Amino acid sequence: MDDKSPKTDSLYSSQLLQTLDYSNAVTSPAKLATNLVLRPLQSDDYNRGFLDLLSQLTKVGTIDENKFQERFHQMKSNGNYYITVVEDVDTSRVICSATLFTEYKFIHSAAMRGRIEDVVVDSEYRGQRLGHLIIETLKLMAQSLDCYKLTLDCRDEMIEWYTKLGFIAIPTRSNMLTIRFTD
Amino acid sequence: MDDKSPKTDSLYSSQLLQTLDYSNAVTSPAKLATNLVLRPLQSDDYNRGFLDLLSQLTKVGTIDENKFQERFHQMKSNGNYYITVVEDVDTSRVICSATLFTEYKFIHSAAMRGRIEDVVVDSEYRGQRLGHLIIETLKLMAQSLDCYKLTLDCRDEMIEWYTKLGFIAIPTRSNMLTIRFTD
Ligand SMILES: CC(C)(COP(=O)(O)OP(=O)(O)OC[C@H]1O[C@@H](n2cnc3c(N)ncnc32)[C@H](O)[C@@H]1OP(=O)(O)O)[C@@H](O)C(=O)NCCC(=O)NCCS
Ligand SMILES: CC(C)(COP(=O)(O)OP(=O)(O)OC[C@H]1O[C@@H](n2cnc3c(N)ncnc32)[C@H](O)[C@@H]1OP(=O)(O)O)[C@@H](O)C(=O)NCCC(=O)NCCS
Repeated sequence: MDDKSPKTDSLYSSQLLQTLDYSNAVTSPAKLATNLVLRPLQSDDYNRGFLDLLSQLTKVGTIDENKFQERFHQMKSNGNYYITVVEDVDTSRVICSATLFTEYKFIHSAAMRGRIEDVVVDSEYRGQRLGHLIIETLKLMAQSLDCYKLTLDCRDEMIEWYTKLGFIAIPTRSNMLTIRFTD
Repeated sequence: MDDKSPKTDSLYSSQLLQTLDYSNAVTSPAKLATNLVLRPLQSDDYNRGFLDLLSQLTKVGTIDENKFQERFHQMKSNGNYYITVVEDVDTSRVICSATLFTEYKFIHSAAMRGRIEDVVVDSEYRGQRLGHLIIETLKLMAQSLDCYKLTLDCRDEMIEWYTKLGFIAIPTRSNMLTIRFTD
């Protein structure tokens, strides 16, 4: 065998991304600069600054490579996690990430509910519509995975941004309550 | 073999319920009437009116027994679903149900986030603190499963009820946005 490419493992099949129809979306991967690639999270993204990127969103804490791999493979075998990233292939860094995951329901004819979590664009790359691209992508994926609805929670100051992307605050049904067990 | 008991399959191990310490909770299973039993959802609860109960919460749609079994086993093999019910053993009906499920994170040192969903008490049994019992139970389970936080979304008119059970609306961080794909 002459294959020198490093062994990579995708969190989900990248085929799913290829089937999405962006014709009604506000942007599309076709508009990406040539050094930017939209793809599923990979098991070797630990070495592309994936956790540094998440630390621009919230506390990441200590995650060594073993712990990263363990969590990656839990998510992968679980089968409901669709963490999608943009890599700058010039620098080999992950510079945008967002999570879609799907929840099994009995209600609504045993439906799936989609959820968006942990959306972040590297501070050096903001304002280039990467945020729009990743959200449009997760919306299309949720629909293609047959979710009956897709929800997210965010800081109040982000409501306007998500509203432009089609999310709505349903009157009397748009709150989220929390109990924190640890910091 | 002389075992005449029907073959039942629990969604999660009932041992988890037995280890919970209710000493700081507002109620406990010890206070249940003798005909009421708190336990994990079982694969034979289709025949105990589980879906009728959910239809008091929202649209359930058509779910035949095969579809119920398929979804039950998807949740069970997924391993992150903790649907907990109260059965009235006098009538063999499920009269209270709520879902805890856990989400894998990379943030917060590869933590788990807990979520409560689909809380319902049969209208004939309301006002007997079964709602309190099921929420306290899911809170203790989430903690024992090492969740760093536990969240839920609800109709605004339920905020007061959940607030009495320890949930808070974190200022500027308590909204939820939605896209509906189907009714
Ligand atoms: C929020 C975030 C993902 C946006 O990513 P981005 O790639 O910079 O966003 P886009 O380029 O797609 O969109 C930028 C547009 O939204 C606008 N915008 C940015 N923040 C906004 C806000 N809070 N409210 C309304 N509009 C906002 C910009 O002005 C810009 O408008 P324009 O296109 O008309 O010039 C990014 O800023 C980020 O990672 N922030 C830190 C983490 C975070 O807050 N994540 C969200 C958690 S809920
Ligand atoms: C909400 C629900 C689960 C509560 O279950 P329950 O077993 O009747 O509740 P409990 O007996 O534990 O608690 C009842 C207490 O809460 C109070 N209460 C009930 N609804 C309330 C509300 N909306 N806001 C504030 N307090 C409320 C009652 O007055 C009662 O007070 P008391 O104990 O001082 O007399 C049940 O009413 C139900 O299934 N409703 C329909 C489905 C639903 O709305 N689910 C919640 C989805 S977000």
